[in-house]
Amino acid sequence: MKVTVHRKAHFNAAHRLYRKDWDQEKNEAVFGKCSNPNYHGHNYELTVSVTGLIDPETGFVIDLKVLKDLIYYEIEIPFDHKNLNIEVEEFQDLNPTAENMAVVIWNRLRPKLKLDLELAVTLYETPRNFVTYSGN
Amino acid sequence: MKVTVHRKAHFNAAHRLYRKDWDQEKNEAVFGKCSNPNYHGHNYELTVSVTGLIDPETGFVIDLKVLKDLIYYEIEIPFDHKNLNIEVEEFQDLNPTAENMAVVIWNRLRPKLKLDLELAVTLYETPRNFVTYSGN
Amino acid sequence: MKVTVHRKAHFNAAHRLYRKDWDQEKNEAVFGKCSNPNYHGHNYELTVSVTGLIDPETGFVIDLKVLKDLIYYEIEIPFDHKNLNIEVEEFQDLNPTAENMAVVIWNRLRPKLKLDLELAVTLYETPRNFVTYSGN
Amino acid sequence: MKVTVHRKAHFNAAHRLYRKDWDQEKNEAVFGKCSNPNYHGHNYELTVSVTGLIDPETGFVIDLKVLKDLIYYEIEIPFDHKNLNIEVEEFQDLNPTAENMAVVIWNRLRPKLKLDLELAVTLYETPRNFVTYSGN
Amino acid sequence: MKVTVHRKAHFNAAHRLYRKDWDQEKNEAVFGKCSNPNYHGHNYELTVSVTGLIDPETGFVIDLKVLKDLIYYEIEIPFDHKNLNIEVEEFQDLNPTAENMAVVIWNRLRPKLKLDLELAVTLYETPRNFVTYSGN
Amino acid sequence: MKVTVHRKAHFNAAHRLYRKDWDQEKNEAVFGKCSNPNYHGHNYELTVSVTGLIDPETGFVIDLKVLKDLIYYEIEIPFDHKNLNIEVEEFQDLNPTAENMAVVIWNRLRPKLKLDLELAVTLYETPRNFVTYSGN
Repeated sequence: MKVTVHRKAHFNAAHRLYRKDWDQEKNEAVFGKCSNPNYHGHNYELTVSVTGLIDPETGFVIDLKVLKDLIYYEIEIPFDHKNLNIEVEEFQDLNPTAENMAVVIWNRLRPKLKLDLELAVTLYETPRNFVTYSGN
Repeated sequence: MKVTVHRKAHFNAAHRLYRKDWDQEKNEAVFGKCSNPNYHGHNYELTVSVTGLIDPETGFVIDLKVLKDLIYYEIEIPFDHKNLNIEVEEFQDLNPTAENMAVVIWNRLRPKLKLDLELAVTLYETPRNFVTYSGN
Repeated sequence: MKVTVHRKAHFNAAHRLYRKDWDQEKNEAVFGKCSNPNYHGHNYELTVSVTGLIDPETGFVIDLKVLKDLIYYEIEIPFDHKNLNIEVEEFQDLNPTAENMAVVIWNRLRPKLKLDLELAVTLYETPRNFVTYSGN
Repeated sequence: MKVTVHRKAHFNAAHRLYRKDWDQEKNEAVFGKCSNPNYHGHNYELTVSVTGLIDPETGFVIDLKVLKDLIYYEIEIPFDHKNLNIEVEEFQDLNPTAENMAVVIWNRLRPKLKLDLELAVTLYETPRNFVTYSGN
Repeated sequence: MKVTVHRKAHFNAAHRLYRKDWDQEKNEAVFGKCSNPNYHGHNYELTVSVTGLIDPETGFVIDLKVLKDLIYYEIEIPFDHKNLNIEVEEFQDLNPTAENMAVVIWNRLRPKLKLDLELAVTLYETPRNFVTYSGN
Repeated sequence: MKVTVHRKAHFNAAHRLYRKDWDQEKNEAVFGKCSNPNYHGHNYELTVSVTGLIDPETGFVIDLKVLKDLIYYEIEIPFDHKNLNIEVEEFQDLNPTAENMAVVIWNRLRPKLKLDLELAVTLYETPRNFVTYSGN
């Protein structure tokens, strides 16, 4: 009996879509107003989904207090109220699109979970734009 | 690294559940108040989900401006503020249930996307009733 | 100690913005696509707000079961899955804008409530457009 | 053409996380404040998802009135305004975690659906914690 | 320039509608299934609204960190994961209806705010039932 | 018969809480992580509420297409995908707290509305923090 447990979290951050190896003209041609050099920002809403067997002793797939703390220390602390391009290591040379952010978040959480648990992340950049990544 | 990009849209339309080859009595027996000959309507909420590899150059699976425009021209323009039974070609001889609408929407969008992208659509008829179709 | 009790309800209906005493050209000039002669429709979300003193015996301003039934019989039954222009008496000669609908709903509910209770109604036509009327 | 039809429902219930074969100290050590002997409670939000072929005659995978009634009689009536630990049979000896509740709900609905329909359930315990079970 | 600052919070609790001075038969006749002796529960969603002048130095009506902490210590800690009838002092002899709960919450917060600030509270018992109290 | 018409809009922007006449140490002491010199950002959700008499000819308090365009040109264009501190004139010497932003938005819209219409604005900075200003 495999069940998926989902936990929501959020963080507020500034970013711009931007490649260092392109000049500003090319960045604007491809990324439009999302490439504003003064940045813009979002209330990111994150859902972390963990799939596994129910532990017959506790009735949990994963203790939600553990999952909540994991998201807090691995994602919320380093991302919340930050400028993603400047202050998050992975985006020094990676464009912080929602797609790349979902992969970065997945890569941060995956090593912290037991191997027999599956992981997917859904990231809302706005209420109308969101992405899902499950490591495949 | 396959990521799914989701984009939400909406349109307001009138419809009735109805088969031309059934008389009104049979339509009412099967479809109840949803078959009211004077129509009723909904705020349809649509999520279009596109799955594919992240383009390493842009960090996009698909440019959301492109996807937003595609949904606008292929779905919102022809469906918004319309009577689905009377004004949308596919429903001339097809009952506009949420299930059939999801298939029609998928069929309109599929040819506009590159072959290596996968497509799924979710259509909310009301906040409590919704359907998903992914072409299988 | 005056408290306001709010109860949400919903109904799905077709309508068009339209004045019988204007020709179709003028209706379209003023009301645009909302005047489509084949109708369009909405999932209307209604909040009914009743303000009054807390009854010290029950702890209620108004019994929510009573309020829920009142909304059901006075508003949901006559409006749900209906064509407002054709099937609701008040809109025979009144344009069913959200503003006029809020007044009609308030007028239907007001006589059913005790005189010492105040009434306000909020009607969502779409998630982005809504109106409030409190009888003043 | 397989489509998934989703229907939302809700119920309000009290529960505590608790194993009868553990003493109170151990229950509190593992389940924290969720093990309060005086109970706490939730507004559970349930989505029932049924996947199958569209019936070409009706345009339905399943008649939503049928699905709505099924959820009402099998889940809402027995769970709503109840104490899950005391009043729901399955939780006499099973900890009512969200995971176990999803399995119990799935097990109650599965025998009522035709064999060629697939079933998944999603249960929100709070707006930030939810689980999904699809019988695998 | 008076601005209202709103902060949302939530807590999960068990309760029953019940008067000690009525027998079970009368409690059930008046309060129905809400009077279940084994309790039921809710995810209460609370909005605290504070109105006052903007401090020209900070640009704040009230520092949201201060307001968030006030709600946490005065309301969330004493109400969350509790049985309101048994574990919250004010409801020892007061029926925990949403109306009475809004007044109790207002009475707990009012003395902690400066006199020149106005206070209102909105409490959602379910997504469809909620109440507002502003001390008048 | 005075009715209030509400229209929702949104914009994404970067900002920091900051006074030019304070040094960084004092800004951080008062505004905490909200004063990060590299900025953070939000998906701001705006509700504009206009109160007035229903025009008996159209059934409108204000034509929603007019209100939508007004919000678009006066607020969304100048604020969306911008850095509020750097790129919006009013915040050159005014701290862009939610309170000050609501006043600035109100001041931009008020001169564009007829004198017999009342105006209020509600601005969500996050789903849990929001402010209201009505010009008093």
